[in-house]
Amino acid sequence: MGVHQYFKSLNDLEKLIRCPGKFKYQEHNVAAHSFKVTKIAQYLGTVEEYHGSEVNWKDLYEKALNHDYPEIFTGDIKTPVKYASGELNMLFMEVEETMTSRFIEEEFPEQYQEIYKRRLKEGKDETLEGQILSVADKIDLLYESFGEIQKRNPEPLFFEIYEMSLVTIKKFSHLACVQDFLGNILSDMLKERFIPRTELMEITESIMDKEI
Amino acid sequence: MGVHQYFKSLNDLEKLIRCPGKFKYQEHNVAAHSFKVTKIAQYLGTVEEYHGSEVNWKDLYEKALNHDYPEIFTGDIKTPVKYASGELNMLFMEVEETMTSRFIEEEFPEQYQEIYKRRLKEGKDETLEGQILSVADKIDLLYESFGEIQKRNPEPLFFEIYEMSLVTIKKFSHLACVQDFLGNILSDMLKERFIPRTELMEITESIMDKEI
Amino acid sequence: MGVHQYFKSLNDLEKLIRCPGKFKYQEHNVAAHSFKVTKIAQYLGTVEEYHGSEVNWKDLYEKALNHDYPEIFTGDIKTPVKYASGELNMLFMEVEETMTSRFIEEEFPEQYQEIYKRRLKEGKDETLEGQILSVADKIDLLYESFGEIQKRNPEPLFFEIYEMSLVTIKKFSHLACVQDFLGNILSDMLKERFIPRTELMEITESIMDKEI
Amino acid sequence: MGVHQYFKSLNDLEKLIRCPGKFKYQEHNVAAHSFKVTKIAQYLGTVEEYHGSEVNWKDLYEKALNHDYPEIFTGDIKTPVKYASGELNMLFMEVEETMTSRFIEEEFPEQYQEIYKRRLKEGKDETLEGQILSVADKIDLLYESFGEIQKRNPEPLFFEIYEMSLVTIKKFSHLACVQDFLGNILSDMLKERFIPRTELMEITESIMDKEI
Amino acid sequence: MGVHQYFKSLNDLEKLIRCPGKFKYQEHNVAAHSFKVTKIAQYLGTVEEYHGSEVNWKDLYEKALNHDYPEIFTGDIKTPVKYASGELNMLFMEVEETMTSRFIEEEFPEQYQEIYKRRLKEGKDETLEGQILSVADKIDLLYESFGEIQKRNPEPLFFEIYEMSLVTIKKFSHLACVQDFLGNILSDMLKERFIPRTELMEITESIMDKEI
Amino acid sequence: MGVHQYFKSLNDLEKLIRCPGKFKYQEHNVAAHSFKVTKIAQYLGTVEEYHGSEVNWKDLYEKALNHDYPEIFTGDIKTPVKYASGELNMLFMEVEETMTSRFIEEEFPEQYQEIYKRRLKEGKDETLEGQILSVADKIDLLYESFGEIQKRNPEPLFFEIYEMSLVTIKKFSHLACVQDFLGNILSDMLKERFIPRTELMEITESIMDKEI
Repeated sequence: MGVHQYFKSLNDLEKLIRCPGKFKYQEHNVAAHSFKVTKIAQYLGTVEEYHGSEVNWKDLYEKALNHDYPEIFTGDIKTPVKYASGELNMLFMEVEETMTSRFIEEEFPEQYQEIYKRRLKEGKDETLEGQILSVADKIDLLYESFGEIQKRNPEPLFFEIYEMSLVTIKKFSHLACVQDFLGNILSDMLKERFIPRTELMEITESIMDKEI
Repeated sequence: MGVHQYFKSLNDLEKLIRCPGKFKYQEHNVAAHSFKVTKIAQYLGTVEEYHGSEVNWKDLYEKALNHDYPEIFTGDIKTPVKYASGELNMLFMEVEETMTSRFIEEEFPEQYQEIYKRRLKEGKDETLEGQILSVADKIDLLYESFGEIQKRNPEPLFFEIYEMSLVTIKKFSHLACVQDFLGNILSDMLKERFIPRTELMEITESIMDKEI
Repeated sequence: MGVHQYFKSLNDLEKLIRCPGKFKYQEHNVAAHSFKVTKIAQYLGTVEEYHGSEVNWKDLYEKALNHDYPEIFTGDIKTPVKYASGELNMLFMEVEETMTSRFIEEEFPEQYQEIYKRRLKEGKDETLEGQILSVADKIDLLYESFGEIQKRNPEPLFFEIYEMSLVTIKKFSHLACVQDFLGNILSDMLKERFIPRTELMEITESIMDKEI
Repeated sequence: MGVHQYFKSLNDLEKLIRCPGKFKYQEHNVAAHSFKVTKIAQYLGTVEEYHGSEVNWKDLYEKALNHDYPEIFTGDIKTPVKYASGELNMLFMEVEETMTSRFIEEEFPEQYQEIYKRRLKEGKDETLEGQILSVADKIDLLYESFGEIQKRNPEPLFFEIYEMSLVTIKKFSHLACVQDFLGNILSDMLKERFIPRTELMEITESIMDKEI
Repeated sequence: MGVHQYFKSLNDLEKLIRCPGKFKYQEHNVAAHSFKVTKIAQYLGTVEEYHGSEVNWKDLYEKALNHDYPEIFTGDIKTPVKYASGELNMLFMEVEETMTSRFIEEEFPEQYQEIYKRRLKEGKDETLEGQILSVADKIDLLYESFGEIQKRNPEPLFFEIYEMSLVTIKKFSHLACVQDFLGNILSDMLKERFIPRTELMEITESIMDKEI
Repeated sequence: MGVHQYFKSLNDLEKLIRCPGKFKYQEHNVAAHSFKVTKIAQYLGTVEEYHGSEVNWKDLYEKALNHDYPEIFTGDIKTPVKYASGELNMLFMEVEETMTSRFIEEEFPEQYQEIYKRRLKEGKDETLEGQILSVADKIDLLYESFGEIQKRNPEPLFFEIYEMSLVTIKKFSHLACVQDFLGNILSDMLKERFIPRTELMEITESIMDKEI
């Protein structure tokens, strides 16, 4: 019934919680995740450009912004299931594409349908922009899992996600932006410390002892 | 690593929110849903027995209690996807069964594995107990969607769920318990009224006017 | 006004939060708790049967499923109050029973009233099924408090609950299922480790060092 | 172990949700309720003073601030239970007082124990301040239930609470402040309108038609 | 101490709730809002391009993505305050810019500082992209307030926000994309109906009457 | 339109979350904070009186109860911004006062306007009551930040808040009540321990070893 259905569907992305079925100290929704991935991709593109690569910014933003939109149709299916059988995964992707196409044909004016079919396609291809998206997606996942580990979530899953994300990022270490991330940003993340109780005691005592 | 993993997994069912990706006034998790379905099945079984059917209570409770446990492995996949292609649905069920079997073999002592494989199987079969489960599952879904409609959730989806649930329940109207539900309980549910503003005004005035 | 009131009341159990008035990392409602207790009782019964006891499954499921239903009428009263005076506790139980009876008489068809009066009675009696319920109820409480301790809830109450639950479970160690729990399951629970920061550092380094 | 336990217990009042076991659009905790009751009592006292009564402000604030503190020890017990039997209610109040006294004796320095025993007593007595507290407590309850009714909570309970609160307030209509509330404030509350859909349409059209 | 601080700050945007201090049926955070504004701007830009305007996509995405980032430093200050005095508003914007600059200088490598100073500036300027941002920001606000009105939030504020947003959008009606929005999308939004109780009754009856 | 607007606004204080834009294990609203500050001020006043000071209780309660009410008009602006420029802060306070005055003139009956203008003024002046308010406000902030640190919130901000609060409290150490707090209460707060894993193991073993 028109683009209103598309605008309205953005609200559903806010109600789609990532990694369902596990206790998390902080929950993230797909809309906020997509925002963060696009912001991270923006930084990674900036680094690439600085190191001499040519970045197609329009493409990069489109890929990052839209990369999880089809979850509107399919919901959040657990990763192990998705990859449990190659056959299932292939069928699953077919269904996803069919549902996305059908939605576009039903809701968008004809003149914009081709544009949106291209935009809502899986963007993680071999282009520089596709590679940056793959990295940005995993960096946000790394931060999400690090956030849980840092708050001491006892669920081993978040450790596995952390590991898997880092392994994927490293696969792109031929990119200048990945070298920048691994060399400068990741190390700062790992330096984040928990303020230990002993320090609390010391600070308290030092405040109490100070003459004023 | 043992039955502890199984006990711990029950907690994950509490973090699995039903009908993800849609605004709801009240959220329900899979653990609480399973409880309600079992309680409803208990009532339906009681009605059947009263009308002369023989109920295998052990079977009925097992089916109701465990009917959604495999969602632990697969997450909540949207119904339209699940049934988008018969092929996908078949593959999906195969994957679900494989993952359940693997879990049982890894975590349960050998002597209980067969029992649990039977218990965690899809229970909606042709037996009286399987039929009661089908009805109880839909009655809870009917109540969930009615709760949203009654609170005036503008999302048409809940109306569709209400309709689809009722259609399914009606398919079992050869059962005495379904006749009881449709004849006595559903009508009371529909009688639930919203207290209109005018009534609030009247009550207030009647309290104010009363001499004390 | 009929069984609809009973079905509707199940929703109230979802809004009844256990252990109110204390900060918890994860909240649990009475409906989900009842589900977990029934699942745990199912396992314990399976162990008993394997070791030669005769289990009345219908009874066991009924007891587990319904054991906290009367909290609908009484709300959650703090345990220390409940047992502060024997007299109060006795009166309290009388009131609970009266309210449950009255509800059944008002809402249930006459032919089912006796059945439900029996079902909604306190089930923790001397029978094997009553003992299994006592154990299952405490195992879930143990898991709830362990979950808080593992997430490092600083409130000593959860430690007291952990201790009290374990003491109660141990009182039933003449049961094969309790021996199984204490010998095999509890030890696995205590083996749950927090992934320490140092390990995070090591994994990160090992991923970074690996040639790919 | 000292006043720290008392300060810390204030946090528990923030985790004590009022009217547990019922779906509510907006939840209220006992700490926020106590704040609102004290603010309302302040206004009512101001009206009384203006009309020539002498208000003991120290008493009024003490009564309002502390009136629900003992819920820390007893949790939230459902009103119907509390009054189900006069005997139970009496015993219940005794237990409440005993636990409060014991807490004060254990945690407070001796020199402040008498003061706090007086402060944490039930304050709804025959004095002007006690009557104002009774009214302020019910006005906040009236607002809480009105908030649910206005948001169209289908649960009849909130309507009963609204009615019961108003009936209680009216019993104090010999007070100038109650006459002020019933005459001026309640009528404004009832004038609160829901902006109907038709108005939304009209406003939209009027904006669209306006030349700019 | 580096870009890690910038990446980490994105998480704070997820904890910044829009329109604080008012009851809302559905809360929105600044990260998700920024995502939706960028998606809406993407559509509006597509319409402009179709009607012959030249869109600088890189600029448009940068403006939309970053337009609320400085709220990290200033928090959410209520709109009436911000505009209560022109002087205050001017000072406020100065402080905002100073804090943003300081953050960039402290955390970003020198070679990217100028780029980010430009990116994190207020983007609602006279360019086509600046105008599209102004419109997209208000369209999302319109949807947010419509969502509350449709769920029957009794707070008049949401009606005022709806009106104010629509008035602002209309100011840009020289843009093809605004004509498209007002002509095609807004009308569909207003057609969204609440499924009335009577319809529920009818559907139920029609299901019950149908022979199967 | 009358005092109803004032009573209704108290509900908004419950929706105003303190310290927005940061992950917190436990959120606090302004209404509950105001309650706790008033309770703490009550204790501090009691200590002062015991040590021979004369406390104006009416003033003390008024100051504590109302000290954050103007946040209704201004929302929660981040502290660093508020003090980023002296000029901004001065203008900000002017705006706050103007908005509060305007509200009182619009909503309150004329005879109470002067009283409320005085009540809703900033209360942290040089009087004993003003000093106690300053201390009580910071003690609650200290508890809030301690609660996060104790739950191991990795965000350094809460450590800074803890330190800043303690420094402010210490500035009032000429007061008997501050000496009491620093000497008796703070030390108990710091003694709060986390129950370490090892202790859990020991308790479990000791329970298991005990003969019963």
